[in-house]
Amino acid sequence: MTNATNPVTITAPEGVPFIDIEREFDAPVAAVYRAHVEPELVKQWLGPNGYDVEIERYDVRTGGGYRYVHTNPAGESYAFNGVFHVARPNEFIIQTFEFEGFPDVVSIESATFEDLEDGRSRVRAHAVYPSLEARDGMISSNMEVGLTEGYERLDGVLAAL
Amino acid sequence: MTNATNPVTITAPEGVPFIDIEREFDAPVAAVYRAHVEPELVKQWLGPNGYDVEIERYDVRTGGGYRYVHTNPAGESYAFNGVFHVARPNEFIIQTFEFEGFPDVVSIESATFEDLEDGRSRVRAHAVYPSLEARDGMISSNMEVGLTEGYERLDGVLAAL
Repeated sequence: MTNATNPVTITAPEGVPFIDIEREFDAPVAAVYRAHVEPELVKQWLGPNGYDVEIERYDVRTGGGYRYVHTNPAGESYAFNGVFHVARPNEFIIQTFEFEGFPDVVSIESATFEDLEDGRSRVRAHAVYPSLEARDGMISSNMEVGLTEGYERLDGVLAAL
Repeated sequence: MTNATNPVTITAPEGVPFIDIEREFDAPVAAVYRAHVEPELVKQWLGPNGYDVEIERYDVRTGGGYRYVHTNPAGESYAFNGVFHVARPNEFIIQTFEFEGFPDVVSIESATFEDLEDGRSRVRAHAVYPSLEARDGMISSNMEVGLTEGYERLDGVLAAL
């Protein structure tokens, strides 16, 4: 077990409406996948530090859906929802994503779960937005802080599994 | 009623993975929407002329899914599937789209249904692909013929409603 935190890499390539995210974990791929699909685990790490997370629904299967609400310490709430196109355990998920503050602006995201052996794994996500403006808005929404802090809490969830 | 066919406009902007489609119909928006969601109507117009269309499932609601198989006169079959993120009658649909010949390459498409008054309407679709290559592959797959011929058959379906 290392003390250093694995870095999260966020790439927003110029001119195309993509966000690519990559993060390694000092945990087996099965544990990382489980922490992405079991609502009681997702609740413990999704989003920035200090936010309340209410998971209304998290049903990871083709045609299943999710909705969750983040509430910051000032009491402001942000709701998100989507549906799952496919979910293959320990391998691959494709889902839609909508921030209800910008209704009908819906992105699609694939997440690939990779076994790195020796109890380590990697998640690579590729998110695709319906416009460059929607992608840039997501980048400027404090996304990096939310991902960095969220994945650090996920490290703790994985250590406790 | 006009004899000329309403043209379909297909735009594939350079450098971004989008396809935009626009088509007007000499029919009210409620009829055009209905022909997009009732499987027995969809079956009559979806795809190029001369193909057999088998609709295995077509369930237009949040979390609903679809799968259909096109078979050309040579007996070659092409299957497609996806899930619906949202469907608001006579207004708006967002769905995912996967050609099973390229599994896991999934696009997202929004369709806006507009009332043009005097019994006319317009459909605007915006499809977003996970890569430029996927978008270009779709454009080069005879998409224009399929859309043009399909919408002409849709005109006939609408005239008979």
